[in-house]
Amino acid sequence: MIDRREFTGAMAGAIAGAVIGSRSRALESLAPPAVNATRLNAHLKELAAFGANPQGGVSRVAYSDFDRQGRAYVMPLMRAAQLDVRVDMAGNIWGRRAGQSAELTPIVFGSHIDSVPDGGNYDGTVGSLSAIEVAHALAESGTALRHPIEVVIWQNEEGGLFGSRAVSGQLPAAELSSRAWSGKTIADGITFIGGNPERLSEARRSRGDIATYLELHIEQGGTLERDGLNIGVVEGIVGIKQWEVTVAGFQNHAGTTPMDQRHDALLSAARFVEMVNRVVRAEPGRQVGTVGRLQAFPGAPNVIPGRVVCTLELRDLDAAKVDRLYAAIATESKRIAEQNQTTFAFELLHENVPAPSDPAVRALIEESAHALGLTTKHMPSGAGHDAQSMAQLGPMGMIFIPSAGGISHSPKEYSTPEDVARGASVLLGAVLRADAR
Amino acid sequence: MIDRREFTGAMAGAIAGAVIGSRSRALESLAPPAVNATRLNAHLKELAAFGANPQGGVSRVAYSDFDRQGRAYVMPLMRAAQLDVRVDMAGNIWGRRAGQSAELTPIVFGSHIDSVPDGGNYDGTVGSLSAIEVAHALAESGTALRHPIEVVIWQNEEGGLFGSRAVSGQLPAAELSSRAWSGKTIADGITFIGGNPERLSEARRSRGDIATYLELHIEQGGTLERDGLNIGVVEGIVGIKQWEVTVAGFQNHAGTTPMDQRHDALLSAARFVEMVNRVVRAEPGRQVGTVGRLQAFPGAPNVIPGRVVCTLELRDLDAAKVDRLYAAIATESKRIAEQNQTTFAFELLHENVPAPSDPAVRALIEESAHALGLTTKHMPSGAGHDAQSMAQLGPMGMIFIPSAGGISHSPKEYSTPEDVARGASVLLGAVLRADAR
Repeated sequence: MIDRREFTGAMAGAIAGAVIGSRSRALESLAPPAVNATRLNAHLKELAAFGANPQGGVSRVAYSDFDRQGRAYVMPLMRAAQLDVRVDMAGNIWGRRAGQSAELTPIVFGSHIDSVPDGGNYDGTVGSLSAIEVAHALAESGTALRHPIEVVIWQNEEGGLFGSRAVSGQLPAAELSSRAWSGKTIADGITFIGGNPERLSEARRSRGDIATYLELHIEQGGTLERDGLNIGVVEGIVGIKQWEVTVAGFQNHAGTTPMDQRHDALLSAARFVEMVNRVVRAEPGRQVGTVGRLQAFPGAPNVIPGRVVCTLELRDLDAAKVDRLYAAIATESKRIAEQNQTTFAFELLHENVPAPSDPAVRALIEESAHALGLTTKHMPSGAGHDAQSMAQLGPMGMIFIPSAGGISHSPKEYSTPEDVARGASVLLGAVLRADAR
Repeated sequence: MIDRREFTGAMAGAIAGAVIGSRSRALESLAPPAVNATRLNAHLKELAAFGANPQGGVSRVAYSDFDRQGRAYVMPLMRAAQLDVRVDMAGNIWGRRAGQSAELTPIVFGSHIDSVPDGGNYDGTVGSLSAIEVAHALAESGTALRHPIEVVIWQNEEGGLFGSRAVSGQLPAAELSSRAWSGKTIADGITFIGGNPERLSEARRSRGDIATYLELHIEQGGTLERDGLNIGVVEGIVGIKQWEVTVAGFQNHAGTTPMDQRHDALLSAARFVEMVNRVVRAEPGRQVGTVGRLQAFPGAPNVIPGRVVCTLELRDLDAAKVDRLYAAIATESKRIAEQNQTTFAFELLHENVPAPSDPAVRALIEESAHALGLTTKHMPSGAGHDAQSMAQLGPMGMIFIPSAGGISHSPKEYSTPEDVARGASVLLGAVLRADAR
């Protein structure tokens, strides 16, 4: 019997053998598992074809034809990695390989392949294809694990973690009728990708059903690149609150209404956008606040806008800070409203509570990275991820790789093939370490 | 032979006999002409049915089915007023009655019946139906005029004076392919309402073809109501310039991009909206500036806007002031762009040069009002009107009546039946005076 720390060290030595661009190891069944960086990066490129935009990037929004094509592309890859593939009632794709012990719960790892409109080629896909690659590496090296492994491709992450929330039991029925970017309702979308919205409860899993959840993802921010580091060890996923904000003024003729008699909803909305920026930046910390959607109505050049509808989004690891910022914004909005007799109304659209990662899982991710000679940084995830749903069910950890220029949700989103391979290797090491726990 | 001033005074006495709610005078062919206020206000109410919105007001945008229904409603009214009705190649409706002299050019009066989306029941319709009522009053009183009269219902005023510009020769061919609110192109719209875009030149009239042009309209501002006056004598129609403004920033993830690393196009656009308001109000005068349309792209709550498209509109009687304000706004936009490394681009969409009214026509409108015991005020028109196209062809004058609360381009647009009748009576008096010139 060997000490766990020693065992981990020995495994790490093997994993450090992963070579970028190495050939298939299918015949070297007794060699230690290693990710095939060439294969992984080729898959990333191939998947990018589904929904590719002329100017670069993809629009593979959930429940679109491109989304379904992307899903049809990854399922054979999962089978090639010797996984038993099924689609659950929520439309998530699962690929399972049994472990040596019948009693143990699975180690689950994966991500998503849907994108925002006009998005990039790395968000979600790096984690999804790396998860498949890790399973492939384990299979072709003949590595036997104690735990079952399950690779998961979550559906509609970008719209609001719909697939993973169905599994964690955090998807209220009322949201099934809301409309996704594809134009379909969530319910119709789930049917479109092979699920069944009337049998969603069958997709549920319970607390304790998962031994460890791991997710590799691009950072989507510029911290790792700026600091010249390889791997982000995620401390947790920030809480998010989103509101729809309606500014009501008085619609009137733009030519005949003197400047001092206007109740211009867009002027108030403009002051709101600037104020949100000022309030969020007024205190130290990593909190962010965004007005991402804004439209003036009726929207004619010669009509003073009578109504503006926009969104407000606030994020921080500390839910109390989000609430404090919102209170300050609501107070300042009243002051803006008084300036030209307009009104502000806030409706909470969406809320994700902050989800801390598991300290022990963080430690094994860090060990995995250091064993490969990679540098690390502990950091929050400013973006929401399916991992936060999984944190409800068991110990969760996330691995970040650098995003060039900190750019994401954009055609310019990019991570180097080397960083992708490094991330996948850290994921492989973390899976092996999680299995050894 | 009587002195013109005496004649006018005598006529005015007769016109002052117009009684609100008086019965048809069809059988009293020797009585002086007078508008039938009951009939006029009933027509106004009936026309409001075409495109009526549940919350009040109308959406009778040019080239819609409702527009065509409204046109089908007014044509029989014109025939009942003993006018010979035709639709010109631009789609304008003309109703003509011959004068005593074969040499004289016509006195033209009218307005439009199309609306903005979600507009009101008085803009254009008051002037259109009053013009028909004036012709009806002249016909049923058997009043013989020296000049021919022509009542005109202009098409697509709200979209940019398309009908009247076709007649004045100010409609460039390139604009025929632009899209109207109805979704149709201008060319398709003209065909839809009975014109022929390939034979537009046949609708043209030349300088000198029109003896006098008169248009009654609601003020669409709050000046007359605030000052407690009956009639606005329009000094001229302000010049208008409209631009499309594109703000380019950098689209990025709203959760992962720190506040100090953002190039948020919407933040710049918000500062632009506030700055336009400040610059326009910084100098004395009646100039106005409006951002009426604004939309952020891609428009998701969790994406920092990479692009904003909005409009800028500036209006004043003095074209040089409009240019000076634009120069100041362009300079300030550069400063805003530098704050967060965004860019501004301006594209001129539309321009109307200021159109002064004719001093002699102004005088006869004022005489007509005073003869009826009504109070008057000289004022610019902040709104564009078809009268500005007609100012290219001959002496033009406009009559305003009060707008309740100064509200227009809104379901809340309102003028009292009494003010409508007063306006129509002033128009009738002005037509008679113009005939006597």
